[in-house]
Amino acid sequence: MREVTLDNLDDIARGAGILGTGGGGDPYIGKLLAREAIRAHGPVRVVRIDEVDADATVVPISGMGAPTVLLERIPNGSEELAALRALERHLGRRATHLTALEVGGVNSMLPIACAARAGLPLVDGDAMGRAFPEAQMVLPGLAGITNSPMALADDKGNTVIVEAVDNHAAERIARAVCVELGCQISCADTVLRGDQLADGLVPATLTLAARLGAVVREARAAHGDPVEAVRATLDGKVLLAGKVLDVDRRTEGGFARGHARVEGTRDDADRVLELGFQNEHLIATRDGATVATTPDLICVLDSDTGDPVTTEGLRYGRRVSIVGARCDPRWTTPGGLALAGPRSFGYEVDYLPFGSAA
Amino acid sequence: MREVTLDNLDDIARGAGILGTGGGGDPYIGKLLAREAIRAHGPVRVVRIDEVDADATVVPISGMGAPTVLLERIPNGSEELAALRALERHLGRRATHLTALEVGGVNSMLPIACAARAGLPLVDGDAMGRAFPEAQMVLPGLAGITNSPMALADDKGNTVIVEAVDNHAAERIARAVCVELGCQISCADTVLRGDQLADGLVPATLTLAARLGAVVREARAAHGDPVEAVRATLDGKVLLAGKVLDVDRRTEGGFARGHARVEGTRDDADRVLELGFQNEHLIATRDGATVATTPDLICVLDSDTGDPVTTEGLRYGRRVSIVGARCDPRWTTPGGLALAGPRSFGYEVDYLPFGSAA
Repeated sequence: MREVTLDNLDDIARGAGILGTGGGGDPYIGKLLAREAIRAHGPVRVVRIDEVDADATVVPISGMGAPTVLLERIPNGSEELAALRALERHLGRRATHLTALEVGGVNSMLPIACAARAGLPLVDGDAMGRAFPEAQMVLPGLAGITNSPMALADDKGNTVIVEAVDNHAAERIARAVCVELGCQISCADTVLRGDQLADGLVPATLTLAARLGAVVREARAAHGDPVEAVRATLDGKVLLAGKVLDVDRRTEGGFARGHARVEGTRDDADRVLELGFQNEHLIATRDGATVATTPDLICVLDSDTGDPVTTEGLRYGRRVSIVGARCDPRWTTPGGLALAGPRSFGYEVDYLPFGSAA
Repeated sequence: MREVTLDNLDDIARGAGILGTGGGGDPYIGKLLAREAIRAHGPVRVVRIDEVDADATVVPISGMGAPTVLLERIPNGSEELAALRALERHLGRRATHLTALEVGGVNSMLPIACAARAGLPLVDGDAMGRAFPEAQMVLPGLAGITNSPMALADDKGNTVIVEAVDNHAAERIARAVCVELGCQISCADTVLRGDQLADGLVPATLTLAARLGAVVREARAAHGDPVEAVRATLDGKVLLAGKVLDVDRRTEGGFARGHARVEGTRDDADRVLELGFQNEHLIATRDGATVATTPDLICVLDSDTGDPVTTEGLRYGRRVSIVGARCDPRWTTPGGLALAGPRSFGYEVDYLPFGSAA
């Protein structure tokens, strides 16, 4: 992909919602912000990782907060640019490129909106290859790249710079600020030099999001099966198709936490799948047996349309299909699992290598 | 006073504890830090407000947190300098002088320790003329001087810069960071130009603290009445002499909140005084009638020694004398009372002008 335009924005938003595994915030709200920014400032140039100069200053842009709050408190669009400018002042140099911290939901759209407003190119990739709820759960962290300095901004004009001793401390401090400022802030952090992009990013996830969005759109237009189109594109596995039976959701500590039960229909009748989430879907248990865990992707799709269903979009009676897919292989190393495996979220199970469930 | 040395440090600490009205943290711990810094780096030069150049950069230094936590988690002495350096990097210029944000307890000692380590002169004064628990309760705020940028540092090496839209927002953000970092951080904020000192500071409170400490020491040495010596120096009023009957204290939201009851003895037999505090003693009610309120000073002294009793030092059976004294007149203007009057702390009473109680 060479450009984000008004024409491919819908596909990217839909695909990023799927890769966001239920988290990263409602892509719809992010799409409105990105569309407005592209309308005002023109399309966003997209560059591949290998096209970026070694000494470039690449700044990942993201939002932090509880997706449940995002639905009620719409960003005004200036927050990301405020965070970027605060970071640049602190660094004493300007960003040459922006990129995404995570490819999920609103967090794939905010870097696009910010790139349009700042007039900067966007690097095709992200620091997770999916979405995760906490700031230290990024591949640069695995590669020994610190996420400080972090610049945080809210919609009122408050900005905060965090210089923490490690990525966990930065997450804790930023999360406390986030909760105090109303559970919705924008972040510019985890600055990467051009020669750190191969270690720090999963390449071409913007392009993957666009392709996922496109296959869903095309399957729908052809009266085909959009869920199967997603499964095939991700080389994944349908874990269950059914309807939502029960959702237990609470907003605590700046996160949307909870679990949901999905009752199988048709081929999956009599089976029950339980989803655990903390902003993102993190674990799937079918008939009492674990069938997929973080850091692999657990994507919940609307069975009819193939649209991604966010954790906050789960509600009684909704017909959904759960698709599992493999994460970036760096996440399944011992270091990756220590950072983002099931136990790092408090689940008392080991990581289940993708595809090994019965 | 021209210098803070090992010789006058004890007097200053004792006097600052008295002016700190129960808050500002245990001066003993601060005194140890200041003594260590003076031993290592030599005496601290003290300058009067009118000796400071108009374009000087004067940085108030303070600690933020719950005094109850300070007793268990001793600062390592590097935090204030870390906050100062973070602020200087952010400002892009060096401080020429340090001063105190409040004259209370540990917060009168930390600027001394930091000035010794930084090799900077200390301006004789503080931004409150007493101690208050919240960052926006400072005279510069009344004079329209913002407390942002605020630099915060903890003992682990984490630093945070806050650029808030107003002083209340800065307090909220800093307090959230403070609580997350364990209820004890150091702050460099509310930068004053030399020509803003007359508006922003109460002059000569370091000298006043030293004098208060000295009169108590001298009264003790002469077997005189140290409480009366304090009362006379402050031109105050003894509200009650008695013993502590009951203390209800809790650490919540980063503060030590509660109240205590003191039963009168000798001349005050059959009288009961109730103290309300939030880090500092804020209101005194005798036999059901309000007799003193914030922003006036309510100083609790050990009846025998004249030593200040902090809110966390109040305990059953301790013999104490409560002395009321007049605050800086800027605090009793409508703006001052809106910022630090009894209602700003949630007490449902009006400010009682000092000396007007029966």
